Amino acid sequence: MSFSFEVLKTDPTGARRGRLTTPHGTVETPFFMPVGTQASVKALTQEGLEDLGAEIILANTYHLYLRPGHELVRKLGGLHQFMSWPRAILTDSGGYQVFSLSELRKMTDEGVRFRSHLDGSEHLLTPEKAVEIQLALGSDIAMVLDECIETPAPRQKAEAALKRTTDWAQRARVYFQECARRSGALSQWQFGIVQGATFADLRRESAHQLVDFDFPGYAVGGLAVGEPHEITCEMTAEATTLLPKDRLRYLMGVGRPEQIADYVALGIDMMDCVLPTRAARHACLYTSEGRVLIKNARYAQDQQPVDSRCACLVCCRYSRAYLRHLFAAGEITAAILATHHNVHFYLDIMRQIREAIEFGNLANFSSEMHARYATGPA
Amino acid sequence: MSFSFEVLKTDPTGARRGRLTTPHGTVETPFFMPVGTQASVKALTQEGLEDLGAEIILANTYHLYLRPGHELVRKLGGLHQFMSWPRAILTDSGGYQVFSLSELRKMTDEGVRFRSHLDGSEHLLTPEKAVEIQLALGSDIAMVLDECIETPAPRQKAEAALKRTTDWAQRARVYFQECARRSGALSQWQFGIVQGATFADLRRESAHQLVDFDFPGYAVGGLAVGEPHEITCEMTAEATTLLPKDRLRYLMGVGRPEQIADYVALGIDMMDCVLPTRAARHACLYTSEGRVLIKNARYAQDQQPVDSRCACLVCCRYSRAYLRHLFAAGEITAAILATHHNVHFYLDIMRQIREAIEFGNLANFSSEMHARYATGPA
Repeated sequence: MSFSFEVLKTDPTGARRGRLTTPHGTVETPFFMPVGTQASVKALTQEGLEDLGAEIILANTYHLYLRPGHELVRKLGGLHQFMSWPRAILTDSGGYQVFSLSELRKMTDEGVRFRSHLDGSEHLLTPEKAVEIQLALGSDIAMVLDECIETPAPRQKAEAALKRTTDWAQRARVYFQECARRSGALSQWQFGIVQGATFADLRRESAHQLVDFDFPGYAVGGLAVGEPHEITCEMTAEATTLLPKDRLRYLMGVGRPEQIADYVALGIDMMDCVLPTRAARHACLYTSEGRVLIKNARYAQDQQPVDSRCACLVCCRYSRAYLRHLFAAGEITAAILATHHNVHFYLDIMRQIREAIEFGNLANFSSEMHARYATGPA
Repeated sequence: MSFSFEVLKTDPTGARRGRLTTPHGTVETPFFMPVGTQASVKALTQEGLEDLGAEIILANTYHLYLRPGHELVRKLGGLHQFMSWPRAILTDSGGYQVFSLSELRKMTDEGVRFRSHLDGSEHLLTPEKAVEIQLALGSDIAMVLDECIETPAPRQKAEAALKRTTDWAQRARVYFQECARRSGALSQWQFGIVQGATFADLRRESAHQLVDFDFPGYAVGGLAVGEPHEITCEMTAEATTLLPKDRLRYLMGVGRPEQIADYVALGIDMMDCVLPTRAARHACLYTSEGRVLIKNARYAQDQQPVDSRCACLVCCRYSRAYLRHLFAAGEITAAILATHHNVHFYLDIMRQIREAIEFGNLANFSSEMHARYATGPA
């Protein structure tokens, strides 16, 4: 029952191949976390996730706090037991969801007051409360509460949000360490979140300040929210060059298949994104030759698998014609099969990336992915 | 590649234990067919169905004729290949769906003219056309086109529908046998359908007339559409006593868990029903102690499995509290897990019924089921 992280190999690009150990198993890095917002990765079962080789998933503090409630989850033995998922779980802090989903949001230095998007009830989320909720959920990695702002943001607003994010990170860190001392056992790792919008100097300032709080891992937040990919990479690089090499780096909410290797090349160890699961439910399938919009009439008689180079259960058994039919007919099984394939595709990209780092040729892999997704069939 | 049916054992109640052999595997009788209307059992994959031990499923001629179209399915190698289901398939004739779903239905001696519920296009379904469509689909068992009427029906209407059903059955039989002679191989079995509404003498008349056409199996149709269970049983008995003992008997569209053994006791070998899959999607779970309406607040902290006597994957892994949460949160995985459990429950009832027949004590099993579903928790 202990945590550790070691970097095993570094690629010429700066990419790192490592291993995270948690009380719920080891996770090979760099890794991608399928998103299980409400303690369920949409359209997959936990057996399915295990078969796909997922070693860690992400769950959402905001949603689980509101429903079924963190105290209920604690009472039922924590999130792992509640959802019967024995492998690792990361919970985000809820900051982004309060920002994007809730109503009548009011931000003060104390925390953020908001109304639930479910029933309109009023809640106050503070840095300390976000720690408490995540300790109740019992995730392996918890995120501090940060202030998310709209992008692009004026400099003044970005500065203010950065200051508050740093203050909150400190309060969260102090409170978390108190809780850990009180319980006598370290059952969770807490990560800080670098903010600073699209200002390079603010990103550096944020990283500098957070490093002082000695987190075992650091996220880069508030990116991939509409800005060009080059800016995402530039801001990520500003942060990662300042973050300690022996700590995990997590780029939140990314990314598109062809972008993932770019982030890894900047020294990112972990990512999460709703894209593979959400796109699947909208009939967009990722393949080695680019996106396949399976509802397209051209697939009506196509007896090929979704991706002839893919070894997933769906590609081994079903044709494009059948998947197209399931989507056209509005069958639930369409979402099940498409999600399985897309999550397999993402986890397989990560396997290929880890292998590429071991052989020191991540740059090649990255250009190939960009080429495929520029010239793909859809 | 051949068909056969043998009765292995008969129970004092009249229940039969047998074995159906098809080109797509053997099916132990009596059996229940999960309903895969549009070439998919809702919320299950074909791997899931195999794991559950389903030996045969039902698909819908009306739906597949309209979408994706039987000629497309034929071109892609037939329904088994199209949906990647190597085991047996029965297709109904589409008569019931034309009756219940389509618009501007016009019944003549020639056939039934209707507008598609999907796009309003006009179609003519004749007994011969229903044969053609099902040969194109390549199902193992095809049903003749019958005329379905509302229940309760006036005697005159029931008589007219019965006459037309018999005429259509004869035309379908002649046309099917011509097709079989022409192709030189018997790749499908064709079943007739006994009609006659709730009139015992009409049911007997229908059975008498159909037997002359020498079908390898006979369905009893137009029942379990609102009439009391006793009437369903009475009408079924009128038919089964007249049907040849060496042919399969299929009661269409039934039934509730506690009623299944009653039908088997009347000599029924096969059934189909949307109940387990549809109820699952509406959060109604079948258990050895009765129905569990899993959204009920009483299950919010319930760490027990859905059914502690059930050996299915869902009951082995997940709690009632988690399933309740998934339904409350509107997660697709709720439908997946609930459907898996309910289909397992139905297939398990059939396993228990087959075992009971072998031990000659089906009557006991039947009373137990009635008792459980009268006193169950929901």
